[in-house]
Amino acid sequence: MTLLVVSAHAGDFVWRAAGAIALATSRGRRAKVLCLSFGERGESAKAWREGKTLEEIKEIRRGEAENAAGVLGAEIEFLDAGDYPLRETPELVDRMVRVYREVNPSVVLTHPLADPYNGDHPAAAHMALQARVLAQAIGYDAPGEPLGAPPVFFFEPHQPEQCDFKPNVLLDITEVFDTKRKAMECLPAQQHMWDYYTDLAKRRGVQVKRNAGPNLGLPHNTMGEAYMRLYPQVTGELA
Amino acid sequence: MTLLVVSAHAGDFVWRAAGAIALATSRGRRAKVLCLSFGERGESAKAWREGKTLEEIKEIRRGEAENAAGVLGAEIEFLDAGDYPLRETPELVDRMVRVYREVNPSVVLTHPLADPYNGDHPAAAHMALQARVLAQAIGYDAPGEPLGAPPVFFFEPHQPEQCDFKPNVLLDITEVFDTKRKAMECLPAQQHMWDYYTDLAKRRGVQVKRNAGPNLGLPHNTMGEAYMRLYPQVTGELA
Amino acid sequence: MTLLVVSAHAGDFVWRAAGAIALATSRGRRAKVLCLSFGERGESAKAWREGKTLEEIKEIRRGEAENAAGVLGAEIEFLDAGDYPLRETPELVDRMVRVYREVNPSVVLTHPLADPYNGDHPAAAHMALQARVLAQAIGYDAPGEPLGAPPVFFFEPHQPEQCDFKPNVLLDITEVFDTKRKAMECLPAQQHMWDYYTDLAKRRGVQVKRNAGPNLGLPHNTMGEAYMRLYPQVTGELA
Amino acid sequence: MTLLVVSAHAGDFVWRAAGAIALATSRGRRAKVLCLSFGERGESAKAWREGKTLEEIKEIRRGEAENAAGVLGAEIEFLDAGDYPLRETPELVDRMVRVYREVNPSVVLTHPLADPYNGDHPAAAHMALQARVLAQAIGYDAPGEPLGAPPVFFFEPHQPEQCDFKPNVLLDITEVFDTKRKAMECLPAQQHMWDYYTDLAKRRGVQVKRNAGPNLGLPHNTMGEAYMRLYPQVTGELA
Amino acid sequence: MTLLVVSAHAGDFVWRAAGAIALATSRGRRAKVLCLSFGERGESAKAWREGKTLEEIKEIRRGEAENAAGVLGAEIEFLDAGDYPLRETPELVDRMVRVYREVNPSVVLTHPLADPYNGDHPAAAHMALQARVLAQAIGYDAPGEPLGAPPVFFFEPHQPEQCDFKPNVLLDITEVFDTKRKAMECLPAQQHMWDYYTDLAKRRGVQVKRNAGPNLGLPHNTMGEAYMRLYPQVTGELA
Amino acid sequence: MTLLVVSAHAGDFVWRAAGAIALATSRGRRAKVLCLSFGERGESAKAWREGKTLEEIKEIRRGEAENAAGVLGAEIEFLDAGDYPLRETPELVDRMVRVYREVNPSVVLTHPLADPYNGDHPAAAHMALQARVLAQAIGYDAPGEPLGAPPVFFFEPHQPEQCDFKPNVLLDITEVFDTKRKAMECLPAQQHMWDYYTDLAKRRGVQVKRNAGPNLGLPHNTMGEAYMRLYPQVTGELA
Repeated sequence: MTLLVVSAHAGDFVWRAAGAIALATSRGRRAKVLCLSFGERGESAKAWREGKTLEEIKEIRRGEAENAAGVLGAEIEFLDAGDYPLRETPELVDRMVRVYREVNPSVVLTHPLADPYNGDHPAAAHMALQARVLAQAIGYDAPGEPLGAPPVFFFEPHQPEQCDFKPNVLLDITEVFDTKRKAMECLPAQQHMWDYYTDLAKRRGVQVKRNAGPNLGLPHNTMGEAYMRLYPQVTGELA
Repeated sequence: MTLLVVSAHAGDFVWRAAGAIALATSRGRRAKVLCLSFGERGESAKAWREGKTLEEIKEIRRGEAENAAGVLGAEIEFLDAGDYPLRETPELVDRMVRVYREVNPSVVLTHPLADPYNGDHPAAAHMALQARVLAQAIGYDAPGEPLGAPPVFFFEPHQPEQCDFKPNVLLDITEVFDTKRKAMECLPAQQHMWDYYTDLAKRRGVQVKRNAGPNLGLPHNTMGEAYMRLYPQVTGELA
Repeated sequence: MTLLVVSAHAGDFVWRAAGAIALATSRGRRAKVLCLSFGERGESAKAWREGKTLEEIKEIRRGEAENAAGVLGAEIEFLDAGDYPLRETPELVDRMVRVYREVNPSVVLTHPLADPYNGDHPAAAHMALQARVLAQAIGYDAPGEPLGAPPVFFFEPHQPEQCDFKPNVLLDITEVFDTKRKAMECLPAQQHMWDYYTDLAKRRGVQVKRNAGPNLGLPHNTMGEAYMRLYPQVTGELA
Repeated sequence: MTLLVVSAHAGDFVWRAAGAIALATSRGRRAKVLCLSFGERGESAKAWREGKTLEEIKEIRRGEAENAAGVLGAEIEFLDAGDYPLRETPELVDRMVRVYREVNPSVVLTHPLADPYNGDHPAAAHMALQARVLAQAIGYDAPGEPLGAPPVFFFEPHQPEQCDFKPNVLLDITEVFDTKRKAMECLPAQQHMWDYYTDLAKRRGVQVKRNAGPNLGLPHNTMGEAYMRLYPQVTGELA
Repeated sequence: MTLLVVSAHAGDFVWRAAGAIALATSRGRRAKVLCLSFGERGESAKAWREGKTLEEIKEIRRGEAENAAGVLGAEIEFLDAGDYPLRETPELVDRMVRVYREVNPSVVLTHPLADPYNGDHPAAAHMALQARVLAQAIGYDAPGEPLGAPPVFFFEPHQPEQCDFKPNVLLDITEVFDTKRKAMECLPAQQHMWDYYTDLAKRRGVQVKRNAGPNLGLPHNTMGEAYMRLYPQVTGELA
Repeated sequence: MTLLVVSAHAGDFVWRAAGAIALATSRGRRAKVLCLSFGERGESAKAWREGKTLEEIKEIRRGEAENAAGVLGAEIEFLDAGDYPLRETPELVDRMVRVYREVNPSVVLTHPLADPYNGDHPAAAHMALQARVLAQAIGYDAPGEPLGAPPVFFFEPHQPEQCDFKPNVLLDITEVFDTKRKAMECLPAQQHMWDYYTDLAKRRGVQVKRNAGPNLGLPHNTMGEAYMRLYPQVTGELA
């Protein structure tokens, strides 16, 4: 039981999926974050204004992301493929196939396929999906066994309605929210996001309660994360 | 843990949801089928051609549906609201609210909201959804406690693509398929449907296997039913 | 081979479907126009401003529509069900079922299902579709034989993009356009529409040529009408 | 220049549109709120639990809504048409036509057309749109002059993504947010909503800034409301 | 009158379009299948498990596809562009333009544009569409005359609802189904597909009958294939 | 206040956006047209038939486009990136980023993102959007200041419904229509388009009047252009 999170930039997995990651690791599962870039050009405005160099910025972001992953109990790997733009190339997809084969995830998280504000996010998602399908083929020339069919969940973008993000899964992250908050606090350059994503977790928590109904007795401070399942859910029970 | 199935006509619940019903009852749960009509005008062509009267046809269909429900271990109730057209009226919705309050379902199954071939199906679905929301209101004047928020699943229509039916849940019904087949055989006037819906269960079973992946080791003869979840799934784990 | 056109108001069939009607009658087929109302309240502003009474306006519009139908070689029947609003009632649907059973159309034309500018158009379409399905049921209590499954085409609304009208059929009406123009000229109160719908026919004609391709040698002045097919086309040949 | 807000229940206009209302009245315009019901059955759970009678609850909600409207500088009228369900009837639509003719609004606000959690909201919206179109017809038998074509904006539902609510207008309400907060505080039974909708205004404010861009120099605490425009914007300038 | 079928892998044209091909050749028309790859990596799992080499697998698949094309009376050409992934390149598109110019098809069949299970299918479709448009331009530097505007039909993917495949054309293939079955039997490695696609043809045949209506007297064993037309149909008659 | 228009071919900006350009320059604003290609292969059929060479055709089209831009009072720059196909490359996007940084537009116009008749149009739009986002990043290595967030409007394609073009902005171009006509007349090879786009402006003008309502007193000959806004409108007033 392993969770694989494919993230375009170094911080994405924290804001959008730290709850799911912490839930997995708190249950003793392996979680691995694959950062395709550091977000060095497009998501580090403060450091650029301070006159940092490209390499310095990459190191800062790497360190922050490693700290956050550490708080969440997750492994993290950086492919350093560049951002703004993150380019879709066969070579990068091939490297991702190899990660899939090595990690053999039971669940995959990534960005949604549309984002008119940020082209790197859909690029990361396209490659994550393409690599997943390639990793399934016995004839694809990469080490390891062919992948199964792990479900894919898109995590929430910054402006969900503009990205055709209609959540069909609401994850209750109440029990690990403190850990998510600590992970967010590992990213000091975006301090205004700490409260922003705490508020979002509250808002999604209200929806968790609303969709679960009053009879389940969820607490007042239920916290949530929203996801969108790409493939149909396979189940032995409707619930 | 109770399953409520709202069906426009007497046979719908068998073709489309017998697997889900049999799974529930095989696990000791209560299942109730609410038939809004007998399908006496619109889905009994053979009996009309044989010169049966309206009342005779209703009795035939009632008997068949009771037999099928019996095979599935489910209760069945008929509201006899008329078909072709099944009319949406406040009175009928009110009767349905009372059923919701009495049954207190944990899961609801009904038709999808669009069907250009059959207006009764969306009418039943609209009323099933409206009554569910009304039953939740403490201020609605009907006996019983306010309803919680049971998830709603649409079952598969005859021509899914024409009804905007995009399955997001695939239910593995392999272990109860024999029971579904027996229930279908309680409806002798539509014998050509027995094989049709057996073939469909095979087809959806192939998709169950495809989406579950090879690693789960599902058997070659996996049988499935397709559903479409209306509200977001609330969960404590992504899987 | 009979064409049935269901029109909310007295003029709709002329602007939007006169080409299809004239093509059918020019080939010796029966065409029948069913006007649910005269458009007496909502589409007769000029007459109201002139101080005409409701009954006078209805007679004017009836006469104009009869003239236009005459030019097109079509029968016309008025149900006088009232407009603005045209109300969807079981009684009106029942009257329409009887028309379907009597006419036994091989093709049905009506309004599209959405129009944020005019609620009567979708109301007419809903009823036209519902009556078509009811007329198919042997158990529906109305004279005549059960209807077959005539294809349904939506004709073009005034602001197509706002009505989710995406044409999937382009009809070449070049050979009967003069007849369409004459039929339009039977509606003197809306003279500005004559040129408007002539321009539209040119525009759709350009699309006829564009989608047919240059090899078919369609003439420079090809004229067209746009339609949207509701049910899948059944065919013995892809072309 | 008059704003008309059509609200299914007594509180809706406060949570969802108080900013737009306060902006209008702060600029000296007339604003009128039309409440179709008090929300007496479906949105007054606390009062029902306290054993209040139906009439008592209606009076409480009326008083609260009048207070909130007063804070916003808006007129308010109640049609007392009942809720849960709010029924679409010709009579109610006719009453609304008369309000349109009397108020002659230059802008209309109402609920979006879909809400799987609350049938009253779409019912109110359907009627608001239908009445607007009827009020435009010179032949419609109601006092006053025919209505122009005021633009319609849907305000934000509780779970926007589930209601196909994709905002295409973001309104900057920073300068009147304090007034909105005061109006919300007129509704004591739903105190948890005060912070919820304050958080939402912050969130939409972040989007206001994001979509306006940094060059406009909007303040850090920009507050927003989201709307969805139904008809195309008519303009003399792209901006 | 020539049919061009653009297929990502060697077997696709058999399962999904053999009926359309056989109908065309049975009427004396030319049909050409263009296979962009052999499906050597992604659709030959059995051969890989048996330890075959890449070249051996390509030869096996080539032979099978040639046999199937032979049964159908169609020409076949392989571009050997590689699969899993099939890469979209300007060079490959250019080769396809030349095929279009040489074949001058009157009808084009290819994959739909979305398939979350298989990236090669949309890649083939994108290139097929792009090449078709390029071949139309007199200024495009390739031998032959500019192409006309042949209609394009998408054939059915494995999981139609997940690929946004909403059939709008149902093709009656009853008279050539035996030939389709024989062509399928040329692909021994996928024997489980023979019955799967026979069942699908039955299912689509039921829909052919349902949409044609009872009056056409189609036989009980009507077999069908489903297609989705990309461009509007140009016609001189609504039917 | 500067308008930037990104056009795939030399003529696109004239037919589709000359009204908006003329409105801007008539108010003293800078307008710049960026033509990615000359449309030398795909939109110059007449010149090819006359036996012109590629370089001759490019010069002809350049001259015509410069004349049209001159009439409109706009600057024009050609990137000569080739057409049919216009290829999306990192280098071309980078050149466009530099244009954004230099022009610092307050409004951007380009093609819509889908066009099944012409792949160059979506390619231009994709690159225009990608370059806009990259130009916003302080870390992107190009001269100039980071871009703000100028709104983006898609202009109207040739067959709007087939391109998912649903106009949500209708621009009144009455006062500059004569200028648009003169600009169109600078393109003599496509003389049939002069009337075509004059008719379209009339048609969109009818919709301007219809959506503005009769009370605004727009003149009978109102002329319009249709646009589709990509990002939400940010505003301080609903109107």
